[in-house]
Amino acid sequence: MYRTHTNGELRASDIDKEVTLSGWVQHVRNKGFLVWVDLRDRYGITQLIFDGERSPKELIEKASHLGREYVIQVKGKVIERQSKNPNIPTGDIEILVSELNILNESKTPPFTIEDKTDGGEELRLKYRYLDIRRNPIRENLIFRHKVAMAVRNYLSNEDFIEVETPYLIKSTPEGARDFVVPSRMNKGQFYALPQSPQTFKQLLMVGGMDKYFQIVRCFRDEDLRADRQPEFTQIDCEMAFVEQEDVLELFEGLLKHLLAELKGVHIEGNIPRMTYDEAMQKYGNDKPDIRFGMEFGELNEVAQHKDFNVFNQAELVAGIAVPGVNSYSRKDIDKLIDWVRRPQVGAKGMVYVRCNDDGTFRSSVDKFYDQEDLAKWAEITGAKPGDLICVLSGNKNEVRSQLSALRMEMAERLGLRNPEEFAPLWVIDFPLLEWDEDTQRYYAMHHPFTAPKKGQLELLDTKPGEVKANAYDLVLNGNEIGGGSIRIHDTQMQDTMFKHLGFTPEEAKKQFGFLLEAFQYGAPPHAGIAFGMDRLTSILGGEETIREFIAFPKNNMGRDLMIDAPATIDLAQLQELSLKVDIKEK
Amino acid sequence: MYRTHTNGELRASDIDKEVTLSGWVQHVRNKGFLVWVDLRDRYGITQLIFDGERSPKELIEKASHLGREYVIQVKGKVIERQSKNPNIPTGDIEILVSELNILNESKTPPFTIEDKTDGGEELRLKYRYLDIRRNPIRENLIFRHKVAMAVRNYLSNEDFIEVETPYLIKSTPEGARDFVVPSRMNKGQFYALPQSPQTFKQLLMVGGMDKYFQIVRCFRDEDLRADRQPEFTQIDCEMAFVEQEDVLELFEGLLKHLLAELKGVHIEGNIPRMTYDEAMQKYGNDKPDIRFGMEFGELNEVAQHKDFNVFNQAELVAGIAVPGVNSYSRKDIDKLIDWVRRPQVGAKGMVYVRCNDDGTFRSSVDKFYDQEDLAKWAEITGAKPGDLICVLSGNKNEVRSQLSALRMEMAERLGLRNPEEFAPLWVIDFPLLEWDEDTQRYYAMHHPFTAPKKGQLELLDTKPGEVKANAYDLVLNGNEIGGGSIRIHDTQMQDTMFKHLGFTPEEAKKQFGFLLEAFQYGAPPHAGIAFGMDRLTSILGGEETIREFIAFPKNNMGRDLMIDAPATIDLAQLQELSLKVDIKEK
Repeated sequence: MYRTHTNGELRASDIDKEVTLSGWVQHVRNKGFLVWVDLRDRYGITQLIFDGERSPKELIEKASHLGREYVIQVKGKVIERQSKNPNIPTGDIEILVSELNILNESKTPPFTIEDKTDGGEELRLKYRYLDIRRNPIRENLIFRHKVAMAVRNYLSNEDFIEVETPYLIKSTPEGARDFVVPSRMNKGQFYALPQSPQTFKQLLMVGGMDKYFQIVRCFRDEDLRADRQPEFTQIDCEMAFVEQEDVLELFEGLLKHLLAELKGVHIEGNIPRMTYDEAMQKYGNDKPDIRFGMEFGELNEVAQHKDFNVFNQAELVAGIAVPGVNSYSRKDIDKLIDWVRRPQVGAKGMVYVRCNDDGTFRSSVDKFYDQEDLAKWAEITGAKPGDLICVLSGNKNEVRSQLSALRMEMAERLGLRNPEEFAPLWVIDFPLLEWDEDTQRYYAMHHPFTAPKKGQLELLDTKPGEVKANAYDLVLNGNEIGGGSIRIHDTQMQDTMFKHLGFTPEEAKKQFGFLLEAFQYGAPPHAGIAFGMDRLTSILGGEETIREFIAFPKNNMGRDLMIDAPATIDLAQLQELSLKVDIKEK
Repeated sequence: MYRTHTNGELRASDIDKEVTLSGWVQHVRNKGFLVWVDLRDRYGITQLIFDGERSPKELIEKASHLGREYVIQVKGKVIERQSKNPNIPTGDIEILVSELNILNESKTPPFTIEDKTDGGEELRLKYRYLDIRRNPIRENLIFRHKVAMAVRNYLSNEDFIEVETPYLIKSTPEGARDFVVPSRMNKGQFYALPQSPQTFKQLLMVGGMDKYFQIVRCFRDEDLRADRQPEFTQIDCEMAFVEQEDVLELFEGLLKHLLAELKGVHIEGNIPRMTYDEAMQKYGNDKPDIRFGMEFGELNEVAQHKDFNVFNQAELVAGIAVPGVNSYSRKDIDKLIDWVRRPQVGAKGMVYVRCNDDGTFRSSVDKFYDQEDLAKWAEITGAKPGDLICVLSGNKNEVRSQLSALRMEMAERLGLRNPEEFAPLWVIDFPLLEWDEDTQRYYAMHHPFTAPKKGQLELLDTKPGEVKANAYDLVLNGNEIGGGSIRIHDTQMQDTMFKHLGFTPEEAKKQFGFLLEAFQYGAPPHAGIAFGMDRLTSILGGEETIREFIAFPKNNMGRDLMIDAPATIDLAQLQELSLKVDIKEK
């Protein structure tokens, strides 16, 4: 037996017990006749003591040569510690070692196995198995497990059945790119890895499963942005015989359950709801962070028709009141203006109003606006004495997006984004379609199976951009953690949707024929939602970097630096698959 | 709201309640002025009554036109049923319908949605969403969910952490064929889908996760045999600082937990253990079904050196005593001899001994053996009066395999394979290596990371076939449901193993370099096991066909008949992947 106890469990009440422990050498302190070793495992750290007066010389000798990360087994007696360490649960005791057994040696790790490591991102990914030994990463993975268990328990108790859907499915050119898998037995043909189990969960509803969920890997061959992974995990859910209200209630229950179970945070009452239009108007963003205010004030009425042409020509003039920063120096403000003019934000400039402590205003456009005008701005943006009003103008969508970026930046600077505060929000009534400038056509904003709101189907022909969908997102602290919709369950309406999305009947049939056919055999009304497990876990865990919550993440080029994948494969393998690599030089 | 109750929950205590129900039309009985409809959902069946005397004529009219599998919603009052149906939980009541709402029509299904359907295998796979509506399949999927939940709860309680490992990994020519995934961003390179997360779970042990599990999809591009799937699910587990005894104890606890939770079957005491050698000798099989006897008796000593040359020239003469079939007619026995001579079994012939009820014997080789001889055979095979001893001879391995097939066949015929009886067994001490005639080399019987038993490493050079491994299988009712081993955790021993498996140091480094490197940074002793989730579930569920426990299985050509995958992909997709399809005519 390698151990009688873990390194996290011995207490003062265990004193005088003979124990066997195993683990990694975290740290060795050598005083010559006394050697202390911190022995680490997943459960904690226990101090070992090798005492020259009480132990044979060879043992002290052996202990003094232990290196960092050596794997050892020791036998010894639990004794009271001279200088107790109140910072660790085992801090009252230490082990007087009588036997030391080196189970495995270790080279010196390429970075320190400490909470704050000196290892860079790439090095940590290459030696991920060492990175996982560090408390923060290990605790993140354990936290992720707890999230998954809590999700499964909640949904199981609500009569949901976890059903495993296939990974080797069929490619669908619509949407993001698929990863494909050549079939050896069906030459020239390919499977695709699922971007989500969308069609399968709908088929399970047709199949009468009533309530389905699955924590499932999904795949998307996109050009990776920061913090995107080619494979990611989804909490995928679907229910039959429900309306939007049923779905929102059940899944806000899930989020509340997770917050209560994992964070001890109890959300009272319903999670607030906001329409997409309102979110865009108030926050310039369909996933607003409502932990703090700074709602947009639209100033067109009070700021236009004066002599300030920049505003007069703008489609939208909007501002936010940044709390308590009227003391920003001219230099601070110039820097802020530079910040909003960065290409990533893209504003042309920024007008500001200092709300003085005495109730007067001082703005960068005093030439055009008097105190009375500015007082109206303050009223509309909700500014109080001490605040700084920041105003942007121009094209409506651009202003909203820029002002949203500014709002988030100021919240960050002011420490308003407290990761231990949780402010969930439903955003509802999303547009059904989204116009794409590049291809000059409409795309499904959610996906092609989303149902339009009742009575809006007629608008599809005349004002497609205005049709609202029965679609909803669950937003947490400015992040979309889940999204879903009421589905179309009627063949004819699905045909109409495909037509509006530019599918010919043949294309629709080729790609989704099985779904359209299934709908002819008694499809029930159904709806669903999917949560991004990686994102949800990281936000609940108080961080925004999903890689820190994934055991073996890939880098931004989609590479696994540890196993060095992807890699070339044997010619024989290619031939068996009837494939040739054909790289065109550019 | 689509429903106030499901179709499985109304009871006599609900009489007089106004309810709303939704579901599928299972059955319509039309008596003109009275129409009964069986309304079905996942939870059960509720009888609806449309009564011409108590309801408007239009309602009766509408109800009488309902077709099978129509999706409807009804409102009505719960009333006491005239002729109660004790076979269903809702059999005391029916719903007097006041409002009928057709939610969706249905074409006539291609097969009946009944427990015993008229649909063939292919048709059922093509319309799997309809097949899932049938009670047996639906109950199987719900059962599978319960198995998964019970596994997760047991292992979580034992401090195991479920860690998600990547699906896009690296191809390893060793073992079965990989499915590969071309990388668009890394041209000419491929990911592979995991055959199991073996190396990742070992790296998690190096990473100090201590106890890992995962219910995870695995992929194997093999020529499919009956009841094999290209993608399958594994309960994958690994532990650090353990010896074989720790693993066996913990995981027999898991099986006992599943049997108790899901089947109400309580296994007393330890699960029996048998060495591989003993299993082969007694049952000719490394996964013996021990629900019944018929252990092999080796008859060389008592049957050779007489004048029967067939036996004299045989490496092994072995027999089983088939209970209670001494009454088989000559014709029955001839048929049985034909059966063992089928190419699938491959015996050349069979000698039999009737154990007469009076204690005498009558055999097909009476010419060579007297009563005394045959009494010895009976003693060795454990035959009693009334039994039939069946004896095969020839090459040892062949005889064992043939006699094992015969034993299973006779057990099947005699009804000894009761699916509701559960007889688990550990088979231990497997050989480390397995000789392959085709390639004239040894392969790892389990996998290249399995540790040889202590003190046997030396045998590797001289008698590699005799080296035993610290490997174990958990067998249930004649099926291997799980298998695992103590792993090598030492770089040098792993190098030695790779050498013996015919890897050059370069090959070993190219494929497993990251693992060998990881072992240099303090790898702990570790061991693991993996269970076939599909197989385990089906056996616990009392069936042996895994397809019946998979929501969307593929057929024997690896095709998903429902979505028609795999399929060709667009030329543009291929070009983006720098690939050309290159099918060679044969």
